[in-house]
Amino acid sequence: MMNEVTPGEMQHLVETLGAIGEQPGGGIVRPVYSAAWVAASKQLSDWMREAGLQVRQDAVGNLFGRIDGESKRTVLTGSHFDTVKLGGRYDGALGVLSALAALRALRPLGTPRKSLEMVALCEEEGSRYHSNFWGTRGILGLIEPSELQMLEDDDGVSIGDAMRHVGLPPEKYRDAIREDLDAFVELHIEQGRILYDEQRPLGVVSTITGLYRFLATVEGRTDHAGTTPMDLRRDAFQAAAEMSLAMTEVVDKVGRPAVLTTGYWDVQPGAWNIVPGAVRFGVDLRYPDETIKQRLATEVRAVADHIASKRGVSVSYEVVGDVPPCDMDPRVRGAIEAAADDLGIPHIPMVSGAGHDSQVMATRAPTAMLFVPSHDGRSHSAAEFTTPEDAARGATVLAHTLRRLVFEPVTS
Amino acid sequence: MMNEVTPGEMQHLVETLGAIGEQPGGGIVRPVYSAAWVAASKQLSDWMREAGLQVRQDAVGNLFGRIDGESKRTVLTGSHFDTVKLGGRYDGALGVLSALAALRALRPLGTPRKSLEMVALCEEEGSRYHSNFWGTRGILGLIEPSELQMLEDDDGVSIGDAMRHVGLPPEKYRDAIREDLDAFVELHIEQGRILYDEQRPLGVVSTITGLYRFLATVEGRTDHAGTTPMDLRRDAFQAAAEMSLAMTEVVDKVGRPAVLTTGYWDVQPGAWNIVPGAVRFGVDLRYPDETIKQRLATEVRAVADHIASKRGVSVSYEVVGDVPPCDMDPRVRGAIEAAADDLGIPHIPMVSGAGHDSQVMATRAPTAMLFVPSHDGRSHSAAEFTTPEDAARGATVLAHTLRRLVFEPVTS
Repeated sequence: MMNEVTPGEMQHLVETLGAIGEQPGGGIVRPVYSAAWVAASKQLSDWMREAGLQVRQDAVGNLFGRIDGESKRTVLTGSHFDTVKLGGRYDGALGVLSALAALRALRPLGTPRKSLEMVALCEEEGSRYHSNFWGTRGILGLIEPSELQMLEDDDGVSIGDAMRHVGLPPEKYRDAIREDLDAFVELHIEQGRILYDEQRPLGVVSTITGLYRFLATVEGRTDHAGTTPMDLRRDAFQAAAEMSLAMTEVVDKVGRPAVLTTGYWDVQPGAWNIVPGAVRFGVDLRYPDETIKQRLATEVRAVADHIASKRGVSVSYEVVGDVPPCDMDPRVRGAIEAAADDLGIPHIPMVSGAGHDSQVMATRAPTAMLFVPSHDGRSHSAAEFTTPEDAARGATVLAHTLRRLVFEPVTS
Repeated sequence: MMNEVTPGEMQHLVETLGAIGEQPGGGIVRPVYSAAWVAASKQLSDWMREAGLQVRQDAVGNLFGRIDGESKRTVLTGSHFDTVKLGGRYDGALGVLSALAALRALRPLGTPRKSLEMVALCEEEGSRYHSNFWGTRGILGLIEPSELQMLEDDDGVSIGDAMRHVGLPPEKYRDAIREDLDAFVELHIEQGRILYDEQRPLGVVSTITGLYRFLATVEGRTDHAGTTPMDLRRDAFQAAAEMSLAMTEVVDKVGRPAVLTTGYWDVQPGAWNIVPGAVRFGVDLRYPDETIKQRLATEVRAVADHIASKRGVSVSYEVVGDVPPCDMDPRVRGAIEAAADDLGIPHIPMVSGAGHDSQVMATRAPTAMLFVPSHDGRSHSAAEFTTPEDAARGATVLAHTLRRLVFEPVTS
């Protein structure tokens, strides 16, 4: 019989791991290959060993706990255990801890048909290096050799040297490559407020949304704020503000799940008494259908072009990100839904608005994700919280999903 | 007979003084009490002496050139000779050089009824110390004793120590006070584009506009740019952008000479992938009538309040400047207009949108200003330019104005 996952168990795991790298004023700093990261890795491997898993660290620092099955084909579950600077206890960590709790729950069932493995991925956030998905890319052979030297942290330490510092010879990075993955399942906090606001315990991800990012540069003319009549100005900020509002309106009209954010602003010269001559702002547009995403990207630039022309300023665009959406695998997603239905846990389909390791894994293995609620939608902050009850529900659904994937007859 | 002021003379003066403090890449750095400032003071006193004026530096570093009249009552003309960082050759300097040219032109006329004096004011810009109008305030006894120690430059040098460094014992600052001023006339570049665009050679200032400045702080909620649906956001930037546009619209409706500028922006946390949670922006509102200025200040905050309430964000205001408008003296202004009419030089009444020494002088002596065109409206930059012809026309009008004020029978 399967063991039960309890809220108390989840709370203990979250609090123990969350204390590693926690700062005196709150918030966790646990970037890849740091001392806190090494300590977290040690804590996780201790727990895995105690749970009777075969523990192994790979060549880039991902940590695995394995239950051998009849087949070497492996169903993998987990998430990342690095954090953003001053991050919370749940982003990434809860997926690792749920995987641990799920494997502990499944351990008594004996040898599965397929092998079952949990993973604590070494890096996802890119908070120390611009190395997002480093752990997953290591597993999939997507790390470029040049990155080992080229990627440097704020102190000028290359990622290769940081690896060496924690006992990982960087030249062996390709030893991390896996060819045996049969499926990947990732539990993650929603990082948004839909489940929280709608008081739903579970989201099953249909698609990880597509991303389109560009830097807009608006150029007008600096003028003296006192001596230049309004009708003679070419104020770059006024134009950019109107563009931002109009772009937002385009996306508002489409409705959920379209989102557009202008979060980065650089207004020059930035003086109270000078009419802004140049403004740069970042546009982050997301939509889970590639065709519509590209259409929206064109449309928001068209409205900005129109405003620029009307106001006598120029606008130019530099695309800095264009990531297609990633659909989750229907079979793995179906296993999650069936598990939740068996347990009587209500669930809703969701689009993931954030990027996850799963979108990289999905390029090589059937992949799906489940979301648990984020209290007040908080994420990437010390205020992250998921109730122990929601965490236990999520881990239980994960355990039952994995049971379906590794114990039941292979049907696909 | 009066001498003539020629374009060639003005060009020579502007180029010679403009070379002092000029940087290799262009732009002048000549802050108060600097080595460049001392060199400029030397050059100006040489010129004054050559012109037969009685030269004197006062206790704070203002430089005077005097023609004694039958009365000790003194008509003063001039402007400041410090510059903003990387400023141009004309802001302030042209008023000093026009005064010099005007007194040179008037010298052959002999002893005037009233005394006539030019001044190169030591400081107006506040570019080294937050000491705006230091020279004029010295003359009027408006320097606070505490300022000598409290005002420090970026290197921590107090203004008192900087005075001592150029041979001015700071404890004697009150020796600069003058009680004999009968009138003050200041020629200045417009620093705007009205004369340039309308191809007018001369503006006669009716009023130096009033200023109202406040910092607006908008607080919404930071949210994840990917995971937070548009309809659940409280985006501080979207609200602030709408406020800025709406405030501008209020002032646009009033028309000239009302101006409002939002030139300073601080968007937090300033990340591409985070919905802005807090925005601070500076509002600079100017109008030459105090009642209307205050009404506009109230109105723009009311539209912002309305937008905040509609969008579910908060907005608060911190007033950082509230300077009433300053009307020019009708008699002195009339003398300028009559002089221009005599010379057949067309002129228009203008509101000064920028602050000037004249607004401080006007608190103690009948004061007026004349503006000459700024090429392309440029100011506070190396691109400042006034044609030698416009400069000579301005100086000639100034000379004829002064002739009226010091040679004609006293009528007031």
